[in-house]
Amino acid sequence: MKYQIRKFNLSVLTGLSSKQIEVHLGLYEGYVKHVNLIREKIAELSQNQEANAYVINELRRRFAFEFNGMRLHEYYFEQFQNSASVQSMNSALARATTEKYGSYENLSVHIRGVASTRGIGWVVVYFDTIGKTIHTVFVSEHEIGQLTGLPIILVIDMWEHAFMVDYVPTEKSKYIDAVFANLNWKFIEKRFDLIK
Amino acid sequence: MKYQIRKFNLSVLTGLSSKQIEVHLGLYEGYVKHVNLIREKIAELSQNQEANAYVINELRRRFAFEFNGMRLHEYYFEQFQNSASVQSMNSALARATTEKYGSYENLSVHIRGVASTRGIGWVVVYFDTIGKTIHTVFVSEHEIGQLTGLPIILVIDMWEHAFMVDYVPTEKSKYIDAVFANLNWKFIEKRFDLIK
Amino acid sequence: MKYQIRKFNLSVLTGLSSKQIEVHLGLYEGYVKHVNLIREKIAELSQNQEANAYVINELRRRFAFEFNGMRLHEYYFEQFQNSASVQSMNSALARATTEKYGSYENLSVHIRGVASTRGIGWVVVYFDTIGKTIHTVFVSEHEIGQLTGLPIILVIDMWEHAFMVDYVPTEKSKYIDAVFANLNWKFIEKRFDLIK
Amino acid sequence: MKYQIRKFNLSVLTGLSSKQIEVHLGLYEGYVKHVNLIREKIAELSQNQEANAYVINELRRRFAFEFNGMRLHEYYFEQFQNSASVQSMNSALARATTEKYGSYENLSVHIRGVASTRGIGWVVVYFDTIGKTIHTVFVSEHEIGQLTGLPIILVIDMWEHAFMVDYVPTEKSKYIDAVFANLNWKFIEKRFDLIK
Repeated sequence: MKYQIRKFNLSVLTGLSSKQIEVHLGLYEGYVKHVNLIREKIAELSQNQEANAYVINELRRRFAFEFNGMRLHEYYFEQFQNSASVQSMNSALARATTEKYGSYENLSVHIRGVASTRGIGWVVVYFDTIGKTIHTVFVSEHEIGQLTGLPIILVIDMWEHAFMVDYVPTEKSKYIDAVFANLNWKFIEKRFDLIK
Repeated sequence: MKYQIRKFNLSVLTGLSSKQIEVHLGLYEGYVKHVNLIREKIAELSQNQEANAYVINELRRRFAFEFNGMRLHEYYFEQFQNSASVQSMNSALARATTEKYGSYENLSVHIRGVASTRGIGWVVVYFDTIGKTIHTVFVSEHEIGQLTGLPIILVIDMWEHAFMVDYVPTEKSKYIDAVFANLNWKFIEKRFDLIK
Repeated sequence: MKYQIRKFNLSVLTGLSSKQIEVHLGLYEGYVKHVNLIREKIAELSQNQEANAYVINELRRRFAFEFNGMRLHEYYFEQFQNSASVQSMNSALARATTEKYGSYENLSVHIRGVASTRGIGWVVVYFDTIGKTIHTVFVSEHEIGQLTGLPIILVIDMWEHAFMVDYVPTEKSKYIDAVFANLNWKFIEKRFDLIK
Repeated sequence: MKYQIRKFNLSVLTGLSSKQIEVHLGLYEGYVKHVNLIREKIAELSQNQEANAYVINELRRRFAFEFNGMRLHEYYFEQFQNSASVQSMNSALARATTEKYGSYENLSVHIRGVASTRGIGWVVVYFDTIGKTIHTVFVSEHEIGQLTGLPIILVIDMWEHAFMVDYVPTEKSKYIDAVFANLNWKFIEKRFDLIK
């Protein structure tokens, strides 16, 4: 099995240029390629398992960086597919969010707060199926700080490559505006429906 | 909502002393306490959101350490509940494992290989519901290298506190033997059943 | 004591636009500001040491990110000061490099290899004063993978903000060319002289 | 050049059993071995540089873990050599510490505070030769959070292997007591003298 590059149905976006998206999709493809590369290298080095045990284990330790780099970009671009659509107040996510944050809009306020975390990485919104609550965290790079075992509701790429074709780092909040302007909440709400 | 300390139905274990388990359960409780502490501190500092934005975000970044520390220990102790029981060749996990590794026993061989990774952390076995395959990785500490969004099948604690009441670090393989001797595969196979 | 923003004597650079440098210097200033902010927050929270012990320790853990972000940028911009100047074959660094890599130019080849490491961070060239040898490593972000206690000879910023005003991530090698075109080796060689 | 295992002149210590020290020295030797192993593996894989570029870079990224694991243990055991000796109020370190913390003893109080940081790693006391001040931080594992380019004054191993032969993790403060009871400050003060 090899991981395949996914295609996304992206129309013209608000506040994110087509060059920005093109560059970003190119980086996504690099992650898919390197996920497969690690698996091939491990298979190759495993021919001589004993001599290469250290190297194999270090490649495996690095797997999360490439795998998450691939998967998080897939969650990200999926959210922009078709065209932007507003939050549905009848969705299960609306109910869970209102319960935790007081209103559905407050989830966006909260996400913006977490997005202001220093450094690069991702804002990731999870649902804890055991604690029955939403958690929004900042993950450094792709693999430092993921909540273990929790399904994902929404992600925002906070690497500099996600916006620097269009914006400089001090304009991060304009980038966040652009992300929110383009979110198709149908995809996000559907993820939550599948969890419950 | 506060996270609660879970109780585990642990009988006498093979190769892991009751003092070892008692010390380890005490550390687990510390994680639950600190998950709640971070949430309280964030709530407290949020009274003055603007002045404390940096501190709040840094606490939130650290959340994964405590949350995963809590949750991974719960997966770990759950696997030892009731008493050890062997792998069921009729389980869905047996089929998935045989497909990937050639046999069910080979999963254990593979886990042992990953467990020999240098450093402290966890061996975590996930199922990628999109790629339809099992991934076994080494997570450093509790939060460095978790695979994003994937449900968990099996975990082994590779922190030194998990075995140093009974063994010295050069006897890690004896500890792994003890873990395998005590696994109740019913819990592990059930996790996999719930994913599919 | 507060850390102060350093000023650098930068003329027009080859392959790095003045906007790129301006944006980058702005980010550097953010690190100085946040180094001081952490110190102030710790002082403030220490008024109530016991209740805030957890928060204080987590801020202190994060200190390296901001401190290294400040210091590494200072090393980086310092290397571009005045104007580019070539390697001196009579320098002590030339001798140490020739001993390790066969020639002084090979240090640059080696640095380019390390700069191709996946992810963002820094290439850092150190001298191990105990082992009497040069080590060139890739540091993730600013603080993951620094060699302990070793003085620094040369750094290259491999964050995306260092080049994305002028280049896209697939043009990283053009950025590295630009860095090398602008290095004033007098500063680099002098650092090494001060170590010996 | 290969890194060599250093021998330390350790007499009977207070509060740290000879088995604890023996186990710990064995782990130290493992780091030296793996520093050399990484260098050998990189040399071996570099025979086919192009095909192995990814693997080489990932081994190089990991170098800091093993190198710091080696070097920090050397700093640690060195501090216990000969026999414990008290702080000298006439030392340059006494003056610098009094300036920053109000008294020499307060450095120890401060170190104890930092040592209570959650997780495993090291307390490291550095001197910032540019900012002319002492910084005490908690480094996770061996390589996450080192202050770049700063010389080292004092280190305390906070991995569980450093004390779990003698103490359980809830007795960490007894371990810290034992460390302080055995410090030969002559070595620590001499490090500081060499910096100035």
